[in-house]
Amino acid sequence: MQVPPPQPEDAGLLVTDAAIDAAAETIRGKVLRSPMFRSPGLSDLLGADIHLKCELFQPTGSFKVRGVFNKLASLSDEEKRAGVIAFSAGNHAMAVAYAARQAGVDVTICMPATAVAFKVQAVRDLGARLELVEGDLVARVMAIREERALTLIHPFDDPAVVAGAATCGREVIEDLPDVNTVLVPVGGGGLISGVAVAVRRARPDCRIIGIEPRDADVVTQSLMAGLPTPLSSSKSMADGLTAPVTGAINLAHIRSCVDEIVTVEEDAIAAAFVDVVRQGKLAIEPAAAVTVAAIQAGSVVLQPGETACLIMCGGNTDRLA
Amino acid sequence: MQVPPPQPEDAGLLVTDAAIDAAAETIRGKVLRSPMFRSPGLSDLLGADIHLKCELFQPTGSFKVRGVFNKLASLSDEEKRAGVIAFSAGNHAMAVAYAARQAGVDVTICMPATAVAFKVQAVRDLGARLELVEGDLVARVMAIREERALTLIHPFDDPAVVAGAATCGREVIEDLPDVNTVLVPVGGGGLISGVAVAVRRARPDCRIIGIEPRDADVVTQSLMAGLPTPLSSSKSMADGLTAPVTGAINLAHIRSCVDEIVTVEEDAIAAAFVDVVRQGKLAIEPAAAVTVAAIQAGSVVLQPGETACLIMCGGNTDRLA
Repeated sequence: MQVPPPQPEDAGLLVTDAAIDAAAETIRGKVLRSPMFRSPGLSDLLGADIHLKCELFQPTGSFKVRGVFNKLASLSDEEKRAGVIAFSAGNHAMAVAYAARQAGVDVTICMPATAVAFKVQAVRDLGARLELVEGDLVARVMAIREERALTLIHPFDDPAVVAGAATCGREVIEDLPDVNTVLVPVGGGGLISGVAVAVRRARPDCRIIGIEPRDADVVTQSLMAGLPTPLSSSKSMADGLTAPVTGAINLAHIRSCVDEIVTVEEDAIAAAFVDVVRQGKLAIEPAAAVTVAAIQAGSVVLQPGETACLIMCGGNTDRLA
Repeated sequence: MQVPPPQPEDAGLLVTDAAIDAAAETIRGKVLRSPMFRSPGLSDLLGADIHLKCELFQPTGSFKVRGVFNKLASLSDEEKRAGVIAFSAGNHAMAVAYAARQAGVDVTICMPATAVAFKVQAVRDLGARLELVEGDLVARVMAIREERALTLIHPFDDPAVVAGAATCGREVIEDLPDVNTVLVPVGGGGLISGVAVAVRRARPDCRIIGIEPRDADVVTQSLMAGLPTPLSSSKSMADGLTAPVTGAINLAHIRSCVDEIVTVEEDAIAAAFVDVVRQGKLAIEPAAAVTVAAIQAGSVVLQPGETACLIMCGGNTDRLA
């Protein structure tokens, strides 16, 4: 869908350039200045200049550390002493466990009882207190937070998290100043909020497109409704993109800075996943394949010679080896 | 093994700095200036600063295009009109087919009848004349070459091919000037010949180590014998490293520029392959895992804080997706 125009209150919710500058300074040395390269294999396959921004190489295997380190640094000493809590089925949980341990902050992670075993094990290995929750995950997290006076590290609905993600967009422009189109996988909307605000301010004419799985299209549904609208069911092989909610701050960034949100079918994700592994030689998780899926399905049309940047958001999967 | 000292005739066989300069100029724009990055996942796993030089992202999925483009450019117009021939079970075949097609040169590829199906298909898809050979591959190639007056593009025993591979070593030093140790997978010895001569001249104190599979140790055997010594059998899951021969030029470069050649067992390669995919997030072929296998087996010892560069030589496999 074409993204509707911003609402009057959106402008006040956007992270500032100063906040992005500060985030870049805060997380320097803690996260990877991730490489971007032109993929000959995917460029041949897709008929355009395809550049891959490799967030899957980050510590804990996804872009999530950018926002998490930035948020953690914003806490008061008192908040750090009390500890933090997060909920997630995977990548955000791993990033919070990793960053909190580095900062010496006590960390509790709540994961759904249905989370995939290897991600649960990864969080355990990172030394977090772990609770597997049957039923309402968010309600349980809020109860623990209240009881133990913990600070919630939200996976996307937080300006510090968005400013952290925006450092990725800054790097895209630094490394590929002539980019025509930026394609970003969309779950709860944290990554695209940050990437889009940074890219849009630097390149008003760059096309910015978000892609979400058809059966996990919370941002599409929320844009249509005009406000954050939870999904009753959210399911995809791209498990990193199945957040059933988005945030007001995320919708504000998307309405202000993104051109289109498109959806892709499961079979297209499955085929694109294989192509990125075989032709792009990246051990991605399925979430990172949705950009390629959208191009292959014709939902995103690239002109020959067009320079596109695809954000390879993560690589945590047990499907490969 | 510690590599024995150079023999008197070795110095005259080394590619010159001028030849490497010229190769870099020749192949610019045809091959990828491949990215190198510090892998947080593998650095944590192996206890040192592990940097990955990502040759698997090259056109046709391996470093081979560097030497092949350089060799092709050295041919006379008459040689180009007559066409070229190459033998290989995989990566070299794909690189020659790709580069010859770009140059408009007729290309014949001989592959063993036992070559893996997907590599045979890849060569076919690149438009080469393809012959699957039962029995003596090299004899058949020499017969066709004679009959049709073709030029052989050798996979490693050629100064133009070594000079092409040396451009990879140049880039390692440009991107990681403080590197302490460079680890290179070894098949017939073409890649390590080039990388070692470029790194050694720039960094006399850098440790340079080659790694070959225990059951495909043609360079070890040839160094012990003092001359190129074919293996009667050569077999490994790292199929990219199973060349049963090496060349005099390769032994000269190795004796002059490499510190050690170590061998690794199959089970260590298998385990390292999984670790590079899971922790390094690269869709490598098993050949590229031998460097990690050597560290994990204790055959290469890295000090904490040591800066190591591992050459991820290729990514052509059907083991992943």
